[in-house]
Amino acid sequence: MTYRIGYLGPAATFTNAAVKRFFGGEESIPYATIPDCMDAVAAREIDYAVVPLENAIEGSVNITIDYLVHEQPLAIVGEIILPIQQHLLVHPEHAEVWRQVTRVCSHPHAIAQCHRFLNQYLRGVPVEDATSTSAAARLVKEHPEERIAAIANETAAEAYGLTIVHRDIHTHQNNHTRFIILHNDAGVSLPYEEPERGMKTTLMVTLPADHPGALYQVLSAFAWRKLNLSKIESRPMKTGLGNYFFLIDVEGAYDGVMLPGAKQELEALGCSVTLLGSYPCYSLKRE
Amino acid sequence: MTYRIGYLGPAATFTNAAVKRFFGGEESIPYATIPDCMDAVAAREIDYAVVPLENAIEGSVNITIDYLVHEQPLAIVGEIILPIQQHLLVHPEHAEVWRQVTRVCSHPHAIAQCHRFLNQYLRGVPVEDATSTSAAARLVKEHPEERIAAIANETAAEAYGLTIVHRDIHTHQNNHTRFIILHNDAGVSLPYEEPERGMKTTLMVTLPADHPGALYQVLSAFAWRKLNLSKIESRPMKTGLGNYFFLIDVEGAYDGVMLPGAKQELEALGCSVTLLGSYPCYSLKRE
Repeated sequence: MTYRIGYLGPAATFTNAAVKRFFGGEESIPYATIPDCMDAVAAREIDYAVVPLENAIEGSVNITIDYLVHEQPLAIVGEIILPIQQHLLVHPEHAEVWRQVTRVCSHPHAIAQCHRFLNQYLRGVPVEDATSTSAAARLVKEHPEERIAAIANETAAEAYGLTIVHRDIHTHQNNHTRFIILHNDAGVSLPYEEPERGMKTTLMVTLPADHPGALYQVLSAFAWRKLNLSKIESRPMKTGLGNYFFLIDVEGAYDGVMLPGAKQELEALGCSVTLLGSYPCYSLKRE
Repeated sequence: MTYRIGYLGPAATFTNAAVKRFFGGEESIPYATIPDCMDAVAAREIDYAVVPLENAIEGSVNITIDYLVHEQPLAIVGEIILPIQQHLLVHPEHAEVWRQVTRVCSHPHAIAQCHRFLNQYLRGVPVEDATSTSAAARLVKEHPEERIAAIANETAAEAYGLTIVHRDIHTHQNNHTRFIILHNDAGVSLPYEEPERGMKTTLMVTLPADHPGALYQVLSAFAWRKLNLSKIESRPMKTGLGNYFFLIDVEGAYDGVMLPGAKQELEALGCSVTLLGSYPCYSLKRE
């Protein structure tokens, strides 16, 4: 059986690279926005959606969290972590003379990540924003008459037939992006090998109103059970300044005793607790 | 003595409205970006910077937090909360026939906030994104020959001589934006009346590595002292996925005993604790 995988497009972005490397030969379909991609799962146009959740430098992708919590309650069924490697790409005709490019084009985040390289090798060359690293690569492809360089990934180099003239030009070597795999059914298992990083459980918790120590009580419920939290993040409820919900990542699977016990206690305290997913965590290696 | 107040521009945005209403007749200078505005304080081109920190619907303004913590360590010396009121503005020549506008222009957030009004009163009229509510108002001003409406605030209506044809068209009545006032010197006091909402203290806390219960211990240090936290937020350290710092807002001033005691204990546990400010909190009323 083959699956249909939707992802945040366009083709040849980092999300596409994560999908290609993780799902291999399955059919993959780009969507213009994260909500479009999530709606397509709900409408059963696709089986899985792959969308970015968090980047080590830029932080959380708020639209993913907000749309999942407020608009489209899908289940998180997996996580993929991809190392972010940026390369300098030019049209093959200009590969020998890449130091004479007249402009460099990429997504603003990618440009920021390669600041040091640009300063050292292409100082003074004008830098231009594109809507994605992939769009920058396409621009280079479509204008062989101009000497433009793009900052983009290997997938974009292959997709547009460009030459990588300098690999790994990003400043921070520890930059990774965390993608989540979404499905209609929380009970579905990914048909893949054992995850390198085990299981994780993500809960959404809202606190009772006017109870200043509530967050401390929430953390207590996890702490005395020795349930380790790998992340806690607040996002606005959208009901007024000062009203937040919390996204809490707990290491390990949603077992039959400890996590349900914590959930029941928190609900008895007046919290609302929603299980967003309990899922395997995969890491892709550097290329 | 007069002050020079820098703010996130352009003129006639909500940040400008907050500055005008709070600082009254002081000289105010728009800056193109939040980092530019903060750098100008550090360079002593201006006395205070006013930048957005958080909106009730959109959440935190990450660039403000990240630039303050990673790049430009200014002191938070005050907070201003402004109710966000959106109005429909047209050129005075079209005030009578505003229902026949051929397009509506505004910042995407403002458009989203007025979705219900647009559906009810201007269904089917094309909607266009602008870089700010103020830029949308300027467009209307510069094109009296076209029947364009802008969604913007009262300050923009005054600045560009436009007519407000429908007031308060935003869906969520509890939408507010929280601005912070930044200064070079944490010891400076704002020369204004008593704050309506008392004092608040903001701390930046980083946890010791590989200590899963550390956040719980941090909250304990506040909880047993009955220090109420009004907000806790995680942001990436930018050193690798899973490394965060926490921005913690504590109700009340940085007193001589309780908060320094908590700070010392946390440091003894291996946390790093930085005081970003202890400051008065002002609320502006609806107009």
